Amino acid sequence: MDRINAVRKQITPVDISKMKRAQERLDALTKPRGSLGKLEEIAKLVVGITGKENPVLGKKIIFTFAADHGVVKEGVSAFPQAVTGQMVYNFLSGGAGINVLARHVGARVVVADLGVASDLKPDPRLIIKKINYGTKNMAEGQAMTRGEALRSIEAGIEIFEEEFKKGVDIVGIGEMGIGNTTAASAITASFTNMPPAQLTGRGTGLSDKALENKIKVIEKALAVNKPDAKDPIDVLAKVGGFEIGGLTGVILAACARKIPVVIDGFISGSAALIAYCLEPKTKEYMIAAHASVESGHVFALNHIGLKPIFDLELCLGEGTGAALAMGIIDASLKIMTEMATFKGAQVSERAP
Amino acid sequence: MDRINAVRKQITPVDISKMKRAQERLDALTKPRGSLGKLEEIAKLVVGITGKENPVLGKKIIFTFAADHGVVKEGVSAFPQAVTGQMVYNFLSGGAGINVLARHVGARVVVADLGVASDLKPDPRLIIKKINYGTKNMAEGQAMTRGEALRSIEAGIEIFEEEFKKGVDIVGIGEMGIGNTTAASAITASFTNMPPAQLTGRGTGLSDKALENKIKVIEKALAVNKPDAKDPIDVLAKVGGFEIGGLTGVILAACARKIPVVIDGFISGSAALIAYCLEPKTKEYMIAAHASVESGHVFALNHIGLKPIFDLELCLGEGTGAALAMGIIDASLKIMTEMATFKGAQVSERAP
Repeated sequence: MDRINAVRKQITPVDISKMKRAQERLDALTKPRGSLGKLEEIAKLVVGITGKENPVLGKKIIFTFAADHGVVKEGVSAFPQAVTGQMVYNFLSGGAGINVLARHVGARVVVADLGVASDLKPDPRLIIKKINYGTKNMAEGQAMTRGEALRSIEAGIEIFEEEFKKGVDIVGIGEMGIGNTTAASAITASFTNMPPAQLTGRGTGLSDKALENKIKVIEKALAVNKPDAKDPIDVLAKVGGFEIGGLTGVILAACARKIPVVIDGFISGSAALIAYCLEPKTKEYMIAAHASVESGHVFALNHIGLKPIFDLELCLGEGTGAALAMGIIDASLKIMTEMATFKGAQVSERAP
Repeated sequence: MDRINAVRKQITPVDISKMKRAQERLDALTKPRGSLGKLEEIAKLVVGITGKENPVLGKKIIFTFAADHGVVKEGVSAFPQAVTGQMVYNFLSGGAGINVLARHVGARVVVADLGVASDLKPDPRLIIKKINYGTKNMAEGQAMTRGEALRSIEAGIEIFEEEFKKGVDIVGIGEMGIGNTTAASAITASFTNMPPAQLTGRGTGLSDKALENKIKVIEKALAVNKPDAKDPIDVLAKVGGFEIGGLTGVILAACARKIPVVIDGFISGSAALIAYCLEPKTKEYMIAAHASVESGHVFALNHIGLKPIFDLELCLGEGTGAALAMGIIDASLKIMTEMATFKGAQVSERAP
């Protein structure tokens, strides 16, 4: 916990005065005021986060963390558990959705095993920070020990710091873990105090009947464990996942380093919830990429006070939405730095 | 009208059987079915439009057409009319919003004067197809003659065809014209039969009082002219604009050549309405980039049956939203062509 607290303490508010100056610059550009909507908001926010007047997001990283979930024993997923590990190999060979979209926006994918249920073949591109071989079944007891929860967050901090040494301007967070929408729903229910039925979706494609079962499993997990919303580590330990803890660590560490963090979908959103409840200032550093098809996602974002950039009806995870959002964020900064001013282009301003 | 009818007759339905095969390919990729939402829909649509199994959008063009509007005499815009011509120079020197965003997605901006109120300095990069020196004031009579309306559409067809010879894979349409949200509202009201108050926004930033006046001006223009919704050329002539006619021509010509057309905001949407009412099959070739802040836009899109890809709270025009959407469309095609299949990546499929 010392490491986590040390990182928390380094998180300072974003630079409001620089954001104000960024807005003044945006208002001087050859366009009606505010007419580039969210692009202007994003550009301003990135200035505030980084403290740089002309931020350039040359080095983009998507952290895609994988782990397994004991709760799959309850039949909460349409896919077998083996898929988590298989998809890690797919990430490493560049064939997954996140690889395609990361390449599209010029981002690098950093893949880490935070707790896949099997031992993965060693690969120089794979970071192994396995906390355990998957979590325990949260419907029967807590998913992990409190110590494991802390270690998963610390592992995320370590992974971020390693990459930070090499240079990074913006990060996105994503994940892979069969069963992890169940954890995300349980985490979101714990913090928002909303009924699981409202926060639970079909994940990788459940039938009506299987969805009903999934909701019951989450209700049971909450009843058995009674996660304490005032203690985010307790929530993570009881109904979370190792990849979720890892992503929480990335968020905290990125905020401490003044690096914008792009939140992907529902599971990343649940990591964002934990980070926000550990340290509310993290909110200012987070950019919500998209509104997921998973019904709980928008409630998680609302709880933090984040608005997604777009809704492309995605529900893949991996960081796919975060990668796409990076393209928009890049565009927003180019608007601020490359557009002509009214004065420079000799364009008349609006009538007073 | 002969030229326009000839182009209309060349527009055929999109290739449904190729779209079906594209969906089968998408379903074989390492992701839960449909989990990439709109990206999958877009990829499939582009296959259907182009008839190509692996479309590559190497050559992207944004057509940014400029023209002036006589109705500005009624005080419907916050900016002076001179800005239309000034912004054309800004487009040519690369400093406008559309230049920045087109560069961001690798698109070329084709700028044309369809009816700016002044003579612009000759420039090899500027296409001059001036139909007239701005439209007449639609609050007093029709904005242009029927002959001018036809010539503006034909001019758009000609401009597209010139670019088509050089090669183009996807086009976006955008515009610049002080006063043209007034024309867009009047056009949308004509086709949807909705009250102008619901379809009229603040354009470049009107006050409450000026917005009230703008609505009254549009009501008057409709009462004076009585545009006939069954005759789209009549609507264009009475309450349209030269740049809007030109963009209508681009849409028709692109559809005839099986090139996807990305619709930008409200004014582009009103050109899309005219094209759709001239030839309903154009709908299948159009991709709506975004939902504009201008309240009429969503009604125009609904009337055609188009759903925007995203809502970034934009209201700049020029083709800016279309350019951003091209980045997403590119990404959707890369998903289809670059992702690994379950079989290829040895990833288990979902339980039957």
